[in-house]
Amino acid sequence: MSVQAAAAAQTTKATMWAIEKSRPEPGLRPITAPVPAVGPKDVFIRVTAFAICGTDLHIVEWDPWAQSRIKPPLIPGHEFTGVVESVGPEVKAVKPGDRVTAETHIYCGLCYACRRGLAHLCQNVRILGVDRQGAFADYVVIPEQNIWKLHPDIPEEIAAIHDPLGNAVHTALAGPVAGLRFTVFGCGPIGCFSIGILKACGAAWVAAVDKNPLRLDLAKRMGADVTLNVERDAVVPSILKATDGHGVDAMLEMSGHPDAFRDGFEALANGGRVSLLGIPSRPLEIDVAREIVFRGAVVQGINGRIIFDTWYRMEALLLAGKLDVRPVITHVLGWSEFDKAVELQRSGKAGKIVLRRDHD
Amino acid sequence: MSVQAAAAAQTTKATMWAIEKSRPEPGLRPITAPVPAVGPKDVFIRVTAFAICGTDLHIVEWDPWAQSRIKPPLIPGHEFTGVVESVGPEVKAVKPGDRVTAETHIYCGLCYACRRGLAHLCQNVRILGVDRQGAFADYVVIPEQNIWKLHPDIPEEIAAIHDPLGNAVHTALAGPVAGLRFTVFGCGPIGCFSIGILKACGAAWVAAVDKNPLRLDLAKRMGADVTLNVERDAVVPSILKATDGHGVDAMLEMSGHPDAFRDGFEALANGGRVSLLGIPSRPLEIDVAREIVFRGAVVQGINGRIIFDTWYRMEALLLAGKLDVRPVITHVLGWSEFDKAVELQRSGKAGKIVLRRDHD
Amino acid sequence: MSVQAAAAAQTTKATMWAIEKSRPEPGLRPITAPVPAVGPKDVFIRVTAFAICGTDLHIVEWDPWAQSRIKPPLIPGHEFTGVVESVGPEVKAVKPGDRVTAETHIYCGLCYACRRGLAHLCQNVRILGVDRQGAFADYVVIPEQNIWKLHPDIPEEIAAIHDPLGNAVHTALAGPVAGLRFTVFGCGPIGCFSIGILKACGAAWVAAVDKNPLRLDLAKRMGADVTLNVERDAVVPSILKATDGHGVDAMLEMSGHPDAFRDGFEALANGGRVSLLGIPSRPLEIDVAREIVFRGAVVQGINGRIIFDTWYRMEALLLAGKLDVRPVITHVLGWSEFDKAVELQRSGKAGKIVLRRDHD
Amino acid sequence: MSVQAAAAAQTTKATMWAIEKSRPEPGLRPITAPVPAVGPKDVFIRVTAFAICGTDLHIVEWDPWAQSRIKPPLIPGHEFTGVVESVGPEVKAVKPGDRVTAETHIYCGLCYACRRGLAHLCQNVRILGVDRQGAFADYVVIPEQNIWKLHPDIPEEIAAIHDPLGNAVHTALAGPVAGLRFTVFGCGPIGCFSIGILKACGAAWVAAVDKNPLRLDLAKRMGADVTLNVERDAVVPSILKATDGHGVDAMLEMSGHPDAFRDGFEALANGGRVSLLGIPSRPLEIDVAREIVFRGAVVQGINGRIIFDTWYRMEALLLAGKLDVRPVITHVLGWSEFDKAVELQRSGKAGKIVLRRDHD
Repeated sequence: MSVQAAAAAQTTKATMWAIEKSRPEPGLRPITAPVPAVGPKDVFIRVTAFAICGTDLHIVEWDPWAQSRIKPPLIPGHEFTGVVESVGPEVKAVKPGDRVTAETHIYCGLCYACRRGLAHLCQNVRILGVDRQGAFADYVVIPEQNIWKLHPDIPEEIAAIHDPLGNAVHTALAGPVAGLRFTVFGCGPIGCFSIGILKACGAAWVAAVDKNPLRLDLAKRMGADVTLNVERDAVVPSILKATDGHGVDAMLEMSGHPDAFRDGFEALANGGRVSLLGIPSRPLEIDVAREIVFRGAVVQGINGRIIFDTWYRMEALLLAGKLDVRPVITHVLGWSEFDKAVELQRSGKAGKIVLRRDHD
Repeated sequence: MSVQAAAAAQTTKATMWAIEKSRPEPGLRPITAPVPAVGPKDVFIRVTAFAICGTDLHIVEWDPWAQSRIKPPLIPGHEFTGVVESVGPEVKAVKPGDRVTAETHIYCGLCYACRRGLAHLCQNVRILGVDRQGAFADYVVIPEQNIWKLHPDIPEEIAAIHDPLGNAVHTALAGPVAGLRFTVFGCGPIGCFSIGILKACGAAWVAAVDKNPLRLDLAKRMGADVTLNVERDAVVPSILKATDGHGVDAMLEMSGHPDAFRDGFEALANGGRVSLLGIPSRPLEIDVAREIVFRGAVVQGINGRIIFDTWYRMEALLLAGKLDVRPVITHVLGWSEFDKAVELQRSGKAGKIVLRRDHD
Repeated sequence: MSVQAAAAAQTTKATMWAIEKSRPEPGLRPITAPVPAVGPKDVFIRVTAFAICGTDLHIVEWDPWAQSRIKPPLIPGHEFTGVVESVGPEVKAVKPGDRVTAETHIYCGLCYACRRGLAHLCQNVRILGVDRQGAFADYVVIPEQNIWKLHPDIPEEIAAIHDPLGNAVHTALAGPVAGLRFTVFGCGPIGCFSIGILKACGAAWVAAVDKNPLRLDLAKRMGADVTLNVERDAVVPSILKATDGHGVDAMLEMSGHPDAFRDGFEALANGGRVSLLGIPSRPLEIDVAREIVFRGAVVQGINGRIIFDTWYRMEALLLAGKLDVRPVITHVLGWSEFDKAVELQRSGKAGKIVLRRDHD
Repeated sequence: MSVQAAAAAQTTKATMWAIEKSRPEPGLRPITAPVPAVGPKDVFIRVTAFAICGTDLHIVEWDPWAQSRIKPPLIPGHEFTGVVESVGPEVKAVKPGDRVTAETHIYCGLCYACRRGLAHLCQNVRILGVDRQGAFADYVVIPEQNIWKLHPDIPEEIAAIHDPLGNAVHTALAGPVAGLRFTVFGCGPIGCFSIGILKACGAAWVAAVDKNPLRLDLAKRMGADVTLNVERDAVVPSILKATDGHGVDAMLEMSGHPDAFRDGFEALANGGRVSLLGIPSRPLEIDVAREIVFRGAVVQGINGRIIFDTWYRMEALLLAGKLDVRPVITHVLGWSEFDKAVELQRSGKAGKIVLRRDHD
């Protein structure tokens, strides 16, 4: 299909199915929305599957963060995959029919961060489904600069979760891994992905920490050498014992929970790495002298994915068969089961839930 | 003088002048102490000058940290210089007559940190004048592995402060400097040294922050482009304005003050470096999500000096005439004026005070 | 002037003055050329000054490299500055009246290198004045992504040489500098710039090596601690003597001369850095075992400038007054003196020559 | 057994079996040698197994390198394991009965390299079995600083080859590995080890290159994704085809062969890593402009093992069961079969050969 034909195809529909945060209050609802407009550098995508992120639950629940950041009406959704239907006239490397997903931090390309190779820390970032119309819809529009074309061997349910899987790759590979020992605090999907990545990349030992037995079981299935339940196990002594008393070489923080900060540092070797992806809901008390200064710790804030270094390495790990993330995808549902998916995810009885298009 | 002769020379004296924390209570007092014994790998040094560190003031004042760490009786003091009088039989590269100072973190060489090149983070570190007998005395004993031989062109008052100057070199050079913009929070001697080092090493702009006008004046003399008084100036807006709104590339924290953590992060560019040397007296509240995670900050705990990389670079900067630290040395007194020196330093009316031997 | 007005202004002229390589043979000649067309993402610049690079001399002389790479007719020139006259409709951050220069490696943004933050190593790079029409002309067109807007305090003759100065910044800052010792082989303009940058950034000692006394004199004026004339001085012994026998911490290779490779490694400390910018005209024999493997050397190929990290740091060094490159600009001529400038530069009797517009 | 008893035990024997290079000519021969003396910081080890390195073959053959470096009489041998019999009075962390091997680069601890954390590049290094009496003997003496204590789970035949396995770990982990593509040129034991390490540490694809079918078969068994026989396969095109035309992210050079340098660079991505461990027997011609400068390559000389970072990571990979090097150990013989082992290794019909003590 030529660009012209594709553009024509697009214009044949004026409206589409979508899920919307319509008003500043809890809940989401299905709507009929206008099909989004396509600018000269944009790619117009027919969404085929999406997944629900923890961020989306904040938006559903309309918590303080959501109230401060989200301006309804908004179509949420930033974990997705689809097929290109048409492209704007300035688009060069993407064409109709391409299977794609996207880096959902739409970066400006012009700020001090972007111009020094830190586009993932863009000062003017607009996040899909947070700051602009998202992917819980029949169609979504993404600038070409953010498009990731999928290799044919990547299955759809994994394509739909490249965004959180990329978070995990970014966090895990933010320092040396091979022959080192790790803790991962928080065994939600990103924590579990990280465990799989660490083990695929030569981590010698990974302890997974959470309080949810289902999540700890997923962590085990992703390769954790030890799982520690904070409600039952002596977390710090267990880790110190397993590391000859000196603590792990690095800690990945995926929970945002204050206890993880306390325990994680206590079980960290001098000079160790701390990679923070979890989002604490409020300021935390940290014993900076003891935990960071005297320990010589290196604490990194991790945001998004390195564009596109993280993506290339994620794809290579997947294609090499080194990383099997399917145990974390506990449910594959249809879009018509959106409410059920939200409930499942809220309940903590699911890992990652992928939702496939189940209407034309 | 041969090793044997030197050893003989040493044994001619059995006692020496020293300053001691004799009992678990505030204060220090001069005593007559036994001359320390010299082991086979040790170097026996006649001290010729020393300086008083902030740590020593904690020991004087017998604050909670001192109460928890110090076991009286103890001779404090870890900033010093002197001349080697004798050496143990296993010592290879140091000989009587050498002018020396020392890395005062006596490392074990056997722990996980030491064996991976992180001796400055030794798990069994014993700090001179804190965990073992220090340098406020006629003589001090140091293992050869910790000795730094002085170049003839290094003057005595600068030799006496290589320990804190090395802290500043370690902190300033813990990341790229050239062509970047910086904040330095806390303008005590180490903060002021850092400013001089940054400017000598290509920092494009350095803002110094403190509340003490004398210290801000020293910061200015060491090359700060801007000095900000926290009691008078709008710290964060001033820095953002001077950096096109994006904040500085790196922050050196030398104060331990909670406000520095708050303001310092707010005025930091995305992806910026935060090097923490200051020791907060208690746990701090940090808005981890906003300040570290979303900002992609890299926060480093800085402890001691890299052995001996920091030392070589410090010496090279000094010998090249690139770094003049003399403005920070506001007073040179004699050992008999020890109490006066403590008072001056406590009062905040001094920069660095060097005390020279004024008895035989 | 609005974008529309500017576009109108542009169209008032159809032809312009330019210097061209018209045929596959030695020489260049002034021509009347069509004014270049402006695409939607392009910036149309009235050139006000340019400079002649060593690459341009290769093109003049039509040497084997030029014969293999250049497709006449071509307007050369990639060191320049000017004022924006108009911009294409997709341009966002550049406007008529802006004083600019440009990163002259026009990168594709789509290849494996570009997509991982290595746009300076773009696999499809098209270099201004080499692979596309250059800046030895009244007007030049540059894609917005490559534009560098100039700070008002940057004078025109320095703006015109940001390209080679950026090479020097990239090379000098490709590893630690502060408190380290360096050799710079080759004291043409980029070598001399490098010396100034190293000294501004805390290098403790820089030895400059060349055979041309004028260039060694410029090196001295840029801050070299020692200058060594390969035809007169014992290069390696002099450097070893000045570095306690262990050699320098890093070597910048700016000459492309085989002797520099031999001497440079011999005078390099174990574990030292070798940054290669000079372009040897043919393959070189290297004693890999002795010079690289056993020495544990790290040898980096340096190409172009990091986009735009190098540029930000270059600007910051210039604005901070830390780097004065004017001694290297030995001549400022007019465009009508182009042939004289080429001759001067060929003769080795000039440093950098800047040519200013001297017609309307 | 106490230190005193052990020392006594040692003195009960005055002579021992050993293999010696007795004269400056080809060959080695068994001798009765004096038992080596034990200094105050030394560890006296009863050797239980050793292996023959390529370096040892050079010594056997008395090639130009051996003639220039070896001073007969010398007991060669630096790949070994054994049990501590006694220790000198200054030894702290090693005791009789400990199973050990050693870092065989005996470093001085005092030079510029050693004092900056680069002991593996010691300027005064003395290599066991090359510059001092080695391990092809009943007993060997090693300074405590170089001792590596073995975990009980490490089997003897692997303990005996920690030296070359450590070379492979050092080389493979000298840059990022996870999710990247590699070439390994040269599939001797170290090349094959490297392949196993890369695959254990997340390398997405490894191409192994050699001309010996047995070695390529071992490479395959160690996990190479592709094996290329230089006498049969189109090496560069095959690699480019498998990497979308851009080449691999990194190349490990383990052969020292000139063709590997030529092909390896041609098949390297822009900005790629080149880690050189192989020792070319003479200077090589390199097209520096094309292969290093324009490619932005980073070329590292790799020597020895990082002390002891490499060792900790090697042990952790082994204990985690991530790295099985047994396929490379093609033969386990007895010391009485030394000549047969040399012949086997010379013939290219063996991988690694471990020789166990077969006399009392």
